[in-house]
Amino acid sequence: LTGTFYIILLSGLSSWSFRSHTCGELRSHHVGDTVTLCGWVQYLRQDLFVILRDFSGLTQILIPQEESASHLKAVLCDLTAESVIKVTGTVRRRPAGQANKAMPTGEIEIHAENVEVFNVCRQLPFEIKDFVKKSESLRMQYRYLDLRSSQMQRNLRLRSQLVMKMREYLSNTHGFVDVETPTLFKRTPGGAKEFVVPSREPGRFFSLPQSPQQFKQLLMVAGIDRYFQMARCYRDEGSKPDRQPEFTQVDIEMSFVDQAGIMSLVEGMLQHCWPAEMGPIEVPFQTMTYEEAMRDYGVDKPDTRFSMKLIDLSELFLSTDIEFLRSALGRPRGSVQAICVPSGAKLFTGKDLDGLKQTAKTQFEQELSVVLVREDGTLKSPLRKLLSDSVTEELLNQTGAKPGDLLLIAAASLHTVRPLLGNLRLQCAEILESYGASPRDLSAFHFLWVVDFPLFLPKEDELEQLESAHHPFTAPLPEHAQLLYTDPHKVLGQHYDLVLNGCEIGGGSIRIHKASEQLYVLKNILKEDSSLLSHLLEALDSGAPPHGGIALGLDRLLSIMVGAPSIRDVIAFPKSFRGHDLMSHAPDLVSEEELKSYHISVRWPTDGGGEDEGK
Amino acid sequence: LTGTFYIILLSGLSSWSFRSHTCGELRSHHVGDTVTLCGWVQYLRQDLFVILRDFSGLTQILIPQEESASHLKAVLCDLTAESVIKVTGTVRRRPAGQANKAMPTGEIEIHAENVEVFNVCRQLPFEIKDFVKKSESLRMQYRYLDLRSSQMQRNLRLRSQLVMKMREYLSNTHGFVDVETPTLFKRTPGGAKEFVVPSREPGRFFSLPQSPQQFKQLLMVAGIDRYFQMARCYRDEGSKPDRQPEFTQVDIEMSFVDQAGIMSLVEGMLQHCWPAEMGPIEVPFQTMTYEEAMRDYGVDKPDTRFSMKLIDLSELFLSTDIEFLRSALGRPRGSVQAICVPSGAKLFTGKDLDGLKQTAKTQFEQELSVVLVREDGTLKSPLRKLLSDSVTEELLNQTGAKPGDLLLIAAASLHTVRPLLGNLRLQCAEILESYGASPRDLSAFHFLWVVDFPLFLPKEDELEQLESAHHPFTAPLPEHAQLLYTDPHKVLGQHYDLVLNGCEIGGGSIRIHKASEQLYVLKNILKEDSSLLSHLLEALDSGAPPHGGIALGLDRLLSIMVGAPSIRDVIAFPKSFRGHDLMSHAPDLVSEEELKSYHISVRWPTDGGGEDEGK
Repeated sequence: LTGTFYIILLSGLSSWSFRSHTCGELRSHHVGDTVTLCGWVQYLRQDLFVILRDFSGLTQILIPQEESASHLKAVLCDLTAESVIKVTGTVRRRPAGQANKAMPTGEIEIHAENVEVFNVCRQLPFEIKDFVKKSESLRMQYRYLDLRSSQMQRNLRLRSQLVMKMREYLSNTHGFVDVETPTLFKRTPGGAKEFVVPSREPGRFFSLPQSPQQFKQLLMVAGIDRYFQMARCYRDEGSKPDRQPEFTQVDIEMSFVDQAGIMSLVEGMLQHCWPAEMGPIEVPFQTMTYEEAMRDYGVDKPDTRFSMKLIDLSELFLSTDIEFLRSALGRPRGSVQAICVPSGAKLFTGKDLDGLKQTAKTQFEQELSVVLVREDGTLKSPLRKLLSDSVTEELLNQTGAKPGDLLLIAAASLHTVRPLLGNLRLQCAEILESYGASPRDLSAFHFLWVVDFPLFLPKEDELEQLESAHHPFTAPLPEHAQLLYTDPHKVLGQHYDLVLNGCEIGGGSIRIHKASEQLYVLKNILKEDSSLLSHLLEALDSGAPPHGGIALGLDRLLSIMVGAPSIRDVIAFPKSFRGHDLMSHAPDLVSEEELKSYHISVRWPTDGGGEDEGK
Repeated sequence: LTGTFYIILLSGLSSWSFRSHTCGELRSHHVGDTVTLCGWVQYLRQDLFVILRDFSGLTQILIPQEESASHLKAVLCDLTAESVIKVTGTVRRRPAGQANKAMPTGEIEIHAENVEVFNVCRQLPFEIKDFVKKSESLRMQYRYLDLRSSQMQRNLRLRSQLVMKMREYLSNTHGFVDVETPTLFKRTPGGAKEFVVPSREPGRFFSLPQSPQQFKQLLMVAGIDRYFQMARCYRDEGSKPDRQPEFTQVDIEMSFVDQAGIMSLVEGMLQHCWPAEMGPIEVPFQTMTYEEAMRDYGVDKPDTRFSMKLIDLSELFLSTDIEFLRSALGRPRGSVQAICVPSGAKLFTGKDLDGLKQTAKTQFEQELSVVLVREDGTLKSPLRKLLSDSVTEELLNQTGAKPGDLLLIAAASLHTVRPLLGNLRLQCAEILESYGASPRDLSAFHFLWVVDFPLFLPKEDELEQLESAHHPFTAPLPEHAQLLYTDPHKVLGQHYDLVLNGCEIGGGSIRIHKASEQLYVLKNILKEDSSLLSHLLEALDSGAPPHGGIALGLDRLLSIMVGAPSIRDVIAFPKSFRGHDLMSHAPDLVSEEELKSYHISVRWPTDGGGEDEGK
């Protein structure tokens, strides 16, 4: 625990406490002081020392060896690891040569004069030492032990501090009002991922909302002007692994603002709350249109920590004889594209290349052409003989491929070839890293705005019908407002996504604030039952200001900041990979008797019956 | 909107906004500036002025009368109330004699030069004026309009600021960690008031907890040391009116602390967050034992803003001939008690006295003796003739009753007579206030700690069996620890309630931190199935520090601070008196199809069937 970011004011850390100091606090200028520490026994050393731990660090306690202190010695030597004690004693400088420079309190030790044992610890399922590896399920079952690790202590404290600084920025500096919105709400149209909560009225259910979207807009209609909330949100993703059914978003909305305003606000907030120890972040963040992101990175949330962009080779192969390329180019929006993996030819094994081809085949149903550039500049590839010298030269020229590099070439419609190469680009970066290459700076934080998304997309199963790319409340670009009524599929929206290191950590939009426009979108474009949103439409007709906002995924943001593999590492009591609380065993059985007052009963699945299709 | 408490930094209030200033901001030193305001049309005056409103106040906009501005004039004169506009213009000093001293911006007006109409408002169900009375159901149905009132704006902003200052105190000054705990949890033993949430596993349910009690204790076991959370809690009170199914508590827990420590912490926090405009609050708060509270006020949450304490007259009537007094005194813990209502004889009508007797009869099954002290010092009462001169004199002496005062006398077991008179005491204060008397200072805030509660109480329906007075995790007073094993019904607990003006606004305790003691309480004293809490017992056995905490009811605290009749007035989107969201119509019907994936079906009540017993 060396960082100081999450310990702002050491002075108040022991107020109202049995202790006089924390275990991370004492230095040589305390020598001679009588102090009281409380904490957990990390370990005993040679019956001479107890190493005592609390959230702030470790302190060495010297066990007195004098005959007169034999009782005290006996008590201390008897302690099991993780027992909880209070020790009073005198701070001493450690004998010459025994200072521990790796330990912040390493210059001193406490000569114990008094001890109180609060609790003796039984044998634990695992030791509380950072190097002890525990299985995920053991960590979840004994979460209260897992949280004692310095990593989890740091993550939870960082989370608390980060949120506090966001609040200061929003509330104290810019007048945002922290408003709590209900979580017992009404089911939204098409809200298939919303948990239901039975009420005591037969057949009537509340619903746990996926976000406070409607409420934040209503608060703008209510004249709150600026709203924020660290909002608990719920999403029932059923059987999907590694999703948390409840999560937290930094939810923001303001009136009389445009897209640029919200973007500046978020940049200012992140800059303000960013821990100094992680290095400064620069604003404004890079901005890219959706079209540019798809063109250059094949994905709408590009990892801009490295290049390896998609290269369009369609022109080069326009008059090619190579059958699969020509046929791809002949199709609507057909394209030939490549990425160049620096040192890929040198580093990648045949197995790596097979893996990439496998991804292309299974996830995208595409063939992938692999071209290795040998050290002498010649190509190794099934394509080699089909390429003329001039095309070969132009290929190397356009892709910038150098000896030792690897080219991955795919040909299909843009709709397919971009996501394919976007996916392989990330996979290649990981392979390169596994060989010790550093295509991206893993300690860097690259924020990126992606803007100008299409407002509507064709439905997957019914291409003629449009659905919202994000949600039905997003306003069109001002210059596209009329296109809504003539060419809705061409309309771009005032939606913006915030991307960090290739992960979407937030999204928002300027909302439609006119009832007539909102009604047209719901009824005429989306063909939805607008009566379910009649309260919102009525509100827009009651003096709604122009407004917009954003929601940031707090758990995701934090997990990227601390480099955690899962958001479970930044949540105190997460559900397991399979959505269970392994500590308390939730969800749990409830008796039919208890369900009676909610007027529901369980439909137990029957073998071979249709009822468990939903599983 | 005159208070300044909730507008800390005016400077950042217009950042990123279309406006240059808020509608409450401009003063005479702005004269000559070109400004842009955004807001709602409060009203038009004589086709000369538009009064524009936002959350911060009102500004007068001068409609230009020049021919060259005829279009602008037409647009402005056409505006309906509550339409939303942006106006750019020049700040002018109002002509001599036209300044409005009642209006913070009353020295200036804006000469409009440009207007943009964002939204025209339709006819509303009620006007947005503070003096317009609306029915509760209309307010709830159109909550986004109701929130535009200056009262509701103030309440929500005060709430936001108050919480922010609590956070600063806890997090920045004293190192508390803001930890979010899950709301999808396991049903707790006897948790009859917990909403259930069906999962996609047949028969298995999450539960929405009534408080994060278990999690906060587990965080202490986890070494978090100091935790707080503005915690959303849920309580399904079924058909009880005026209860909110979700509410917020300021949830606090810390390790290595005793009862006095937690009490100081809360006092410091409330003092820190208390709005200056409400006057300072003094610490430490008054402390009273449960026994003292019951003895003097007949209730465990006394309103200490006024005296009118219970007076024990048992000694006086020890050898009385009056039958009902003697018989009461002859019963176990029998007692004769009185309260003296100053000026009660002068002010109370016969109807008032009947009302008091009615309360005694219907709620407590007791007769109430009423004694009026006439202006000449003689008594008017059915008791009068039964009292000797010396007893009469002693009665007036002990009760301090003066001419014009009223004595209410009841005789029963302490168990009954105290709550009866405690109840009548409050009723009398209200009656006095209805006649313009001021028994209590209604602008004062009297905080009070009540301590030394019994740890267990006999079950109502099974007097031999004990149940927890608060919850099973409360530790006994240190000096009563051994009594647990010998005389549990005599044990007092380390529980403390915080009372404000006669309302309980918080409660907490030092918890049991030894597994063996916790197990003994659950198993041997409460006879509960301890296996349901096995994870907590296991945690206590894994190195649990001594710890304790408190939870404050944020909604209740705020409603007392602002003098609101209901907590609905300090919640943005509350449920109605009957538990419904009248705006969106939650709870709502959900199709059987949608319930299928949760493996539940609705049990529709049949006429005369047993199924709707729970209603």
